[in-house]
Amino acid sequence: MPSHVRIVEVGPRDGLQNEKTIIGTADKIALIDRLSATGLRSIEATSFVSPKWVPQLADAAEVYAGIHRQPGVSYPVLVPNEQGYERARAVGVMEIAVFTAASEAFNRRNINAGIDESLARFAPVMERAKADGVRVRGYVSTVLGCPYQGEVPLGDVVRVAKALHDMGCYEVSLGDTIGVGTPGKARAMLKAVAGDVPMAALAVHFHDTYGQALSNILACLEEGVAVVDAAVSGAGGCPYAKGASGNVATEDVVYMLHGLGIATGVDIDRLAETGRWLAALLGRETGSKAGKALLSK
Amino acid sequence: MPSHVRIVEVGPRDGLQNEKTIIGTADKIALIDRLSATGLRSIEATSFVSPKWVPQLADAAEVYAGIHRQPGVSYPVLVPNEQGYERARAVGVMEIAVFTAASEAFNRRNINAGIDESLARFAPVMERAKADGVRVRGYVSTVLGCPYQGEVPLGDVVRVAKALHDMGCYEVSLGDTIGVGTPGKARAMLKAVAGDVPMAALAVHFHDTYGQALSNILACLEEGVAVVDAAVSGAGGCPYAKGASGNVATEDVVYMLHGLGIATGVDIDRLAETGRWLAALLGRETGSKAGKALLSK
Repeated sequence: MPSHVRIVEVGPRDGLQNEKTIIGTADKIALIDRLSATGLRSIEATSFVSPKWVPQLADAAEVYAGIHRQPGVSYPVLVPNEQGYERARAVGVMEIAVFTAASEAFNRRNINAGIDESLARFAPVMERAKADGVRVRGYVSTVLGCPYQGEVPLGDVVRVAKALHDMGCYEVSLGDTIGVGTPGKARAMLKAVAGDVPMAALAVHFHDTYGQALSNILACLEEGVAVVDAAVSGAGGCPYAKGASGNVATEDVVYMLHGLGIATGVDIDRLAETGRWLAALLGRETGSKAGKALLSK
Repeated sequence: MPSHVRIVEVGPRDGLQNEKTIIGTADKIALIDRLSATGLRSIEATSFVSPKWVPQLADAAEVYAGIHRQPGVSYPVLVPNEQGYERARAVGVMEIAVFTAASEAFNRRNINAGIDESLARFAPVMERAKADGVRVRGYVSTVLGCPYQGEVPLGDVVRVAKALHDMGCYEVSLGDTIGVGTPGKARAMLKAVAGDVPMAALAVHFHDTYGQALSNILACLEEGVAVVDAAVSGAGGCPYAKGASGNVATEDVVYMLHGLGIATGVDIDRLAETGRWLAALLGRETGSKAGKALLSK
């Protein structure tokens, strides 16, 4: 297992994107600043998708401009196309994330394009990013199952991950979007991808829809992955399972990692407080069990 | 990993014992009967401790007598002393569970006796059980931490587990009572105990206070344990962490095991329905993420 894991905090983007309660711009900025104060070094700040798709993140430019940027902390933003890239660059973004799915059906339903066309659409964004010195992270979603086609062939996951890496993504995050995976399948998927993309360029991204996220992460750590996506307080939800849990909670991940003797650089008590603060904004209890237990002391 | 895991369902006892909402006797009986209908083969039915300690389970005799006992299903009950043993035997109990802690401080606070005295107190119960042909399961609590003394030496866990096995317990369940354990520590603890007690005579019992239960179970499965305690809908709570989660939810465990290709004999859909039914009786949402996701379909 790795001696150090880098957490990519996705609460402000993947978390909030799936929350119905609209959070104000100042609170989003405060969330990101609180997160950087916990020691987190990668914080996905927002998304420059069309406000029509994700009204919660319509204030992407204002949020990004408002962050009190800390040295050594990266603040990637999601970018779907050249238009989004331009909006992001206009406020000085230096790292972006692009996304596609390993499921043909998921891509067709979500962006009206198959896997190959979806990859082709990135090409101009990747080229401009390269020219501008902007780092690009890639997301592959539905790596362990798809709400439309069910099973996703491992070969498709490998092919898409490799394509993103070949196109210039410094890191590819493998996402179990609907949280159906279990540890054996997660391990097998990671192993397959690591045959074609260096493990050091891979991250795992689990949703806790079926309560499996932490054990999936454990299995992947045993395979050598050293980058884990998570969202403070388990923010987010699942558009494909009403009322279900969202992203794995960063607090729970950090608690497990520290217990395993793996360093993260994160102050878990400050993180738990931030989780409670965010949950209060969202009008509910924190979705992190470790957070709740730590704060009850 | 094992090809088959036996789940010991502890919801009706360990779960309800820590729930404040009082459940009627008929509903407790219905819960146990619903659980046996899911395919579960070991269901801890109730506790013959003093009603003064656990008012929720004051109707132990009525509950036990009311169960529609299924062939091949065992219904152990918790028994603290000879008096409890007699009450249990009076209604025909054929399997009991005795309990102590690996923490000296925990025993002193809870039963006003150290580890050795606590073990000595079981001796007459064990003898009578042997003479009556009654099977005895043993619980060791606080195996990964104690609310009073903090760290619990591994040597104490091994010593107590071995003592229970030597006294005649056919199985010893190792319990992380306050849910503080993480997978590396859980694995090391199980390995240490398995040096002195056969793995086939060991079970693991995790609480999800810090969200770690399922990953701890995964680590222990990798070490070869094949018996797992769990409570439907994650019933219960933690008296040492207000508002925290209770036992690991049986639905989540079964979902993981089936995903790993490990048989349990349990119908997960019926189990999820039973979890929802119990949660409704308790006036809240099910504490099982897998249950919630399965039922949202």
